Amino acid sequence: MVQLHTDRLHGSVTAPVLGSISFLNEVMSRHPGAISFAPGAPHPDTLPDVDVQRFTDRFLDHAVVRGASPDRARRLLFEYGPARGLINDIVAEALRQDYGIDAPPESYVITVGAQEAMLLVLRALFRSSGDVLAVANPCFVGITGAARLLDVDVLGVDETAHGLDLDGLARSCQEARAAGRAVRALYVAPDYSNPGGSRMTLDCRHRLLALAAREDLLLLEDNAYGFTAAADDELPSLKAIDTEGRVIHIGTFAKTAFPGARVGFVIADQRVDGGDARILADVLASIKSMVTVNTSPLSQAVIGGMLLEHGGSLDRLSRTKSELYRRNLHLLLDALDRDLGSPPPGVHWNRPDGGFFVRVHLPVPADTDLLEVSAAEYGVLWTPMRQFFLDGAGDTQIRLSCSYLDPDGIDEGVRRLAAFLTKETRQ
Amino acid sequence: MVQLHTDRLHGSVTAPVLGSISFLNEVMSRHPGAISFAPGAPHPDTLPDVDVQRFTDRFLDHAVVRGASPDRARRLLFEYGPARGLINDIVAEALRQDYGIDAPPESYVITVGAQEAMLLVLRALFRSSGDVLAVANPCFVGITGAARLLDVDVLGVDETAHGLDLDGLARSCQEARAAGRAVRALYVAPDYSNPGGSRMTLDCRHRLLALAAREDLLLLEDNAYGFTAAADDELPSLKAIDTEGRVIHIGTFAKTAFPGARVGFVIADQRVDGGDARILADVLASIKSMVTVNTSPLSQAVIGGMLLEHGGSLDRLSRTKSELYRRNLHLLLDALDRDLGSPPPGVHWNRPDGGFFVRVHLPVPADTDLLEVSAAEYGVLWTPMRQFFLDGAGDTQIRLSCSYLDPDGIDEGVRRLAAFLTKETRQ
Repeated sequence: MVQLHTDRLHGSVTAPVLGSISFLNEVMSRHPGAISFAPGAPHPDTLPDVDVQRFTDRFLDHAVVRGASPDRARRLLFEYGPARGLINDIVAEALRQDYGIDAPPESYVITVGAQEAMLLVLRALFRSSGDVLAVANPCFVGITGAARLLDVDVLGVDETAHGLDLDGLARSCQEARAAGRAVRALYVAPDYSNPGGSRMTLDCRHRLLALAAREDLLLLEDNAYGFTAAADDELPSLKAIDTEGRVIHIGTFAKTAFPGARVGFVIADQRVDGGDARILADVLASIKSMVTVNTSPLSQAVIGGMLLEHGGSLDRLSRTKSELYRRNLHLLLDALDRDLGSPPPGVHWNRPDGGFFVRVHLPVPADTDLLEVSAAEYGVLWTPMRQFFLDGAGDTQIRLSCSYLDPDGIDEGVRRLAAFLTKETRQ
Repeated sequence: MVQLHTDRLHGSVTAPVLGSISFLNEVMSRHPGAISFAPGAPHPDTLPDVDVQRFTDRFLDHAVVRGASPDRARRLLFEYGPARGLINDIVAEALRQDYGIDAPPESYVITVGAQEAMLLVLRALFRSSGDVLAVANPCFVGITGAARLLDVDVLGVDETAHGLDLDGLARSCQEARAAGRAVRALYVAPDYSNPGGSRMTLDCRHRLLALAAREDLLLLEDNAYGFTAAADDELPSLKAIDTEGRVIHIGTFAKTAFPGARVGFVIADQRVDGGDARILADVLASIKSMVTVNTSPLSQAVIGGMLLEHGGSLDRLSRTKSELYRRNLHLLLDALDRDLGSPPPGVHWNRPDGGFFVRVHLPVPADTDLLEVSAAEYGVLWTPMRQFFLDGAGDTQIRLSCSYLDPDGIDEGVRRLAAFLTKETRQ
């Protein structure tokens, strides 16, 4: 029998991440009674609204109004579709209306979740091995994983409470240049990053755009959690205040609609010189045709129909979800205050006002051994932060997600967590 | 405004293929009355059967029988799912039952079409730049495109009427070895390849497996068109007669169910030594989590439900489609015989008994200029074959697809084609 060796397989380099997620699943399966702050998945209460038939019909009506015959419209759902997408007009109108992002439908590519969008953008931008991707550190593993798959070199820029260490970024650009390389792009999630939970101030956004212009950087903006901001506390996305076309904006419907559709998008309106492509979206669509051909038209129709049913507004589609997550986040922070009123020495956490995540610092290593103790003896699970750091830092931090739990679960979970932290972080 | 340059973008290297497809679309839009033998898309008559609600319900019943609560089953459709897939058991049982492929569900990864499966396999297998991918020449552009995206070097092995030039393959392996490189895998579609239309004899299949063992090759088998074989004329897939575990088998539901689901699969039961992965499917699932996270559970449920509604048999699901395509293919070949009874000098074609495609040789270059003449003056379209060749060969060949047309269209289309070939291929 053929036996393959791991050192000749490329995917084996992603094993650390896989290992960590499967370890969490495995721990969960051994401790079914444990309360888990690990999954960043959308709350089950947001799902019963998904009526595939109704939303599909809604999309079909729209297609007919736009000029397709009913038969032709129906076939759109089942045939191959354009690599660029089927609902670009609906999504572009929503982002224009709700968030002031002024980009034409043809600059959108509808992708299999935000993950495929990241892969496409990295593949397009990183042709030369001299180019480096900068990422906020700690960082969402989806972008560092995609970079690893494509052999793209990554460097970390520290995330701060206000967003990002811009001086550090400028220094990295200079150092790369001195070494004959170039920081080609920065990946950043300005609104409630995963896992850091920080939010970039408006001033920091403007300064980042100015720095990008000075250093000739592209900005890869991930807006997965922006919808969780309170209505009276919204900040413009980088793309909305991007006057130079430096921002490539990535979004997902996994949280605002539902993850099972696997529908995300990227806005890439940058002009391209020479060759057949007119704008970056043309290049991305061409690459996409070699990755997934096109995003399931059926899934796109469901998402398109959901948007149309909410007056074409992403904001309206996501409003009740946004409220649920803000409620959960405040319950989590309140419970931490209540049960850890005087926290053990070295235990402290941040206080994001949006997103899914709270980051807790411990005075001891937050490794898989400690997680095992937490699950077995205290019945509570969390995510070790170390996997999110590029530089092996973060090994004394944990991530708590509030998205998947109910109020009772959050309450009881924090009680257990407080007991665990109080006893087990004594040195 | 930012201006990107095509020579610093990776995707621009796929522009030739994109250009060709968009050229075809563009020609079609300028000549809406033309009959097109270009699209290899499934016939519209195969689509009205798709009842999303019914098939989804059928899958949910199955999930409940397998032990999920109705509520939990319903959530499976809408939440994130496992990277490996949700319907592996259903698909594995179908392939065991119908085609004698004996591989456990966990060796399957359900992918976003066959295209993603190709990308995942190439990424897993090609870690070292010393490794080369061999492909049948002419070749499906999906695999060469994916190889280009991943910077995998490709060499061509001539396709013959019986399948493949095995001596040429053995020679290529030796030459690579002499140059300090290795042919790591061969991509091949044994059953009615796209675009060549050839079918590998049983003898050739056995000899290929023996050669793979001798040269330590993996075989990447694409079975997109196997279902079009007549019931009394089926040959076993390479995977079904693979005793050594050398075959990685890729399939798609685009033709047997419908393309808009974007559901395909790969069977990768090869054992892996060292590291966390136990079999190759583990590595592919790990890579997939960085490409698309998971294939839309909704799409998977529809495909799973379609299979279940046909007794869990892929053969039964695809039977009427197989008959339709065989009918169309025979109509096309008969019409060519009728209208080109004594073909112009240098015009000849192959006679596949399955698949979607017939390959016609011309005595003149089949380029975009000739296609323009064919469309404008004769009202008939076809695909230039050159894009399918690695070595610039094939520039006097065209591909005719019979899959998308009705009998009347095939008849009239061949009449026009005959007039075109008779007049325009005189030298």
